[in-house]
Amino acid sequence: MTAVGYASNGQPRKVEAHSQLLGRRIATLGPYSPLFYREPLELVSGSGVWVSDRQGQRYLDAYNNVPHVGHSNPRVREAVAKALGTININSRYLTEQPIAYAERLLATFAPQLDRVMFTNSGSESNELALRIARQHTASDGVLISDFSYHGNTTSLAQMTTGLQVAEPLGDHVRPIRIPDVPQDASAQETASLVSSALAEVDRAIDLLTARGHRLSAVLLDPSFSTEGLPRVPVSYLRGLVERVHKAGGLYIADEVQSGFGRLGSWMWGHQRFGVDPDLVTLGKPMGNGIPIGAVVLPDGLLEEFGSRNQYFNTFATTAVPSSAAQAVLDVMADEQLAARAEQIGRALREDLTGYALTDPFVSDVRGQGLYLGIELTVAGEPAPALAGWLSEALRERGVLASRIGRHDNVMKVRPPLVFGSQDARTLASALEDALAEAAQGEWARHAAVGGRA
Amino acid sequence: MTAVGYASNGQPRKVEAHSQLLGRRIATLGPYSPLFYREPLELVSGSGVWVSDRQGQRYLDAYNNVPHVGHSNPRVREAVAKALGTININSRYLTEQPIAYAERLLATFAPQLDRVMFTNSGSESNELALRIARQHTASDGVLISDFSYHGNTTSLAQMTTGLQVAEPLGDHVRPIRIPDVPQDASAQETASLVSSALAEVDRAIDLLTARGHRLSAVLLDPSFSTEGLPRVPVSYLRGLVERVHKAGGLYIADEVQSGFGRLGSWMWGHQRFGVDPDLVTLGKPMGNGIPIGAVVLPDGLLEEFGSRNQYFNTFATTAVPSSAAQAVLDVMADEQLAARAEQIGRALREDLTGYALTDPFVSDVRGQGLYLGIELTVAGEPAPALAGWLSEALRERGVLASRIGRHDNVMKVRPPLVFGSQDARTLASALEDALAEAAQGEWARHAAVGGRA
Repeated sequence: MTAVGYASNGQPRKVEAHSQLLGRRIATLGPYSPLFYREPLELVSGSGVWVSDRQGQRYLDAYNNVPHVGHSNPRVREAVAKALGTININSRYLTEQPIAYAERLLATFAPQLDRVMFTNSGSESNELALRIARQHTASDGVLISDFSYHGNTTSLAQMTTGLQVAEPLGDHVRPIRIPDVPQDASAQETASLVSSALAEVDRAIDLLTARGHRLSAVLLDPSFSTEGLPRVPVSYLRGLVERVHKAGGLYIADEVQSGFGRLGSWMWGHQRFGVDPDLVTLGKPMGNGIPIGAVVLPDGLLEEFGSRNQYFNTFATTAVPSSAAQAVLDVMADEQLAARAEQIGRALREDLTGYALTDPFVSDVRGQGLYLGIELTVAGEPAPALAGWLSEALRERGVLASRIGRHDNVMKVRPPLVFGSQDARTLASALEDALAEAAQGEWARHAAVGGRA
Repeated sequence: MTAVGYASNGQPRKVEAHSQLLGRRIATLGPYSPLFYREPLELVSGSGVWVSDRQGQRYLDAYNNVPHVGHSNPRVREAVAKALGTININSRYLTEQPIAYAERLLATFAPQLDRVMFTNSGSESNELALRIARQHTASDGVLISDFSYHGNTTSLAQMTTGLQVAEPLGDHVRPIRIPDVPQDASAQETASLVSSALAEVDRAIDLLTARGHRLSAVLLDPSFSTEGLPRVPVSYLRGLVERVHKAGGLYIADEVQSGFGRLGSWMWGHQRFGVDPDLVTLGKPMGNGIPIGAVVLPDGLLEEFGSRNQYFNTFATTAVPSSAAQAVLDVMADEQLAARAEQIGRALREDLTGYALTDPFVSDVRGQGLYLGIELTVAGEPAPALAGWLSEALRERGVLASRIGRHDNVMKVRPPLVFGSQDARTLASALEDALAEAAQGEWARHAAVGGRA
């Protein structure tokens, strides 16, 4: 089979169409739809935190957040099958399930975030939140972190800073650098970093205003996952939101990555900063793989938008996605998954932090709950090639992970939330083994052909 | 329970929150999410072309196109449950099901439309198609019919002409009037209508160019459903596409309404004009209620877009939506649903056309396959209030339908494709009965409180 070009995270590379299925994929979806690994992994089954490939090899899934309560979760399957055998009709008719789910979901937010509009994806949620913010402020200026991604529509492409898109940044969009405070920074160093980052916010707002784009919103992921899970001081986020509000804009928290207990102690990522957003957007883990997203907002913003726009979303607000999402909350409650994420994530982070002290390549371990980042450096410089090699090395050891960050050098550990203590040990052990091999210089010989995994 | 305001198709009205569920809905989703009927219908089950409300009343569904192969179709349910119990993971891993479906789907298109990009909805599909067209043409001018709707994102709101949105039409958007040729028009009258409509296209393209927005695309629904199913001559569409191509733009066919055999003889609505689109967008009926959409395009456009943009869509291109969509094609093939839609639609249209000759209010019967429109007029004027009354009267007779068109006076008959001959007779009989009541003047007394159903 002929070799074909792939673009992954903007880096084109060649891979062999090693399997018939890959050839069929290229002939229908084309060569650009991104694939992990030098030799893409064909998966045929999954259960809990485990998936299996066509050859029967099992892999511990330490990467995927969409199967939030586990691959092939039986309660999600039953809930969906039940809705598909009963009634699944658009929201211009009354059906019980979307309303029951809306009540359950809203109970997890601050009291003023009391309304929900359902969508089919995180992209649709961010699109809608920005429409609402633009209409509320009668303006369109947007602040965005300078290495982030919020969706695949035109408006969102115009504010994409962390992924290759052909659209230039909009004139109405201004990227800001999120401060990343070193773990051992003094209070004074932290204050200085925050102060200079907030000065950048002031300048960005002034620039937008000068360009004729008064501020409409800041859109951010409270875990700053694309950025590589930087350590962001509470004082920065508070100062940022204060400035946004003062300029008349709204704070939109994109909880697609950080929500649903991912960060452990908090159901929602924004809660760790103690500042309530004006709008919250949801996606990925919400329906365990059944497409569903949402915008959570106060009654006042809904009133303003709803009275001026007929918003209708055919698939959203129907029984199938809301039943799947309800089952996710059921499993989370019954298995105490947020508390478990906190506990297992903390133990895993402490365990991995051990490496940071001894391993030549691990310079930092970051994150919260079950979203951890392991920063890799060589001689003090970011080591994306090592991170690529490590993804492949983990795969060879039966563990799925990937990488994130501005320099693509932060190993990303973000397993289904049903990840247990034994799973954490399996991951840590595979990582230890792979890093030992890396220490012998193995990685450098392969890095040249690595590409992103 | 207190009365609350509803906005439906831009017309606010008051309804009593007659049920506890409606009260709960308002307290979570707010009062603006549109609902059919004066007293909204709470549905608890569905099977084939039938749905049932909480009181056990059954209704023949002559309206809903999302349950394309019928409510609660067992093959769709089984296919989805199977995928949910096996593997349902994002497309950065290889899985068989999305590729198998892509092959099956592409086989239904002209040979040059040989690639597919999956999405979660018609809105996402149209967003993506417009991004591709804009990048291909390095411009952004768009022609749109002057009473149409293609989705709920910001870009699409800026080209919405058939529904209330707060966003004004974009400077880069120009609406055109689609010619509606009377059934009894002579060849000369038709030619004259086409000629003047094409002159409007020329002026629209010139205007966009003069404004600095060279043409990027025309985006249209080949059934012109929002417009009320006008009779559009083949020569018009050919002339329109010729002009679009000559100006450097692309023809995007939005098959969300007209696709998957809905129009009977043709799998795709664009086929009835014999002009292949450059891009085709899919949505609604594709997964029988499981969210899925797609953009079908030639390899060259995919190459151009894919090499410059990393497009990734988390939920799309996974096993669950493609299994649902595959089951839809299976049922369509096994039950010959497109041929059946042609045959039953034709008989029903002929039956209903009988009314056009005798009923004082029915001025025309239009449409193709199982997408029919019954135009209602009073003294030669469009009669939206009568159409609203008729929707309610049909509901009282156990039949679900609604209305469309610039004047909201065209009864919309668009049942699941498994609609049979007996169902068609049930619908025709309910319609005859309701129209007989209307002829006695009943409708006028109620019309004032009618609202849109």
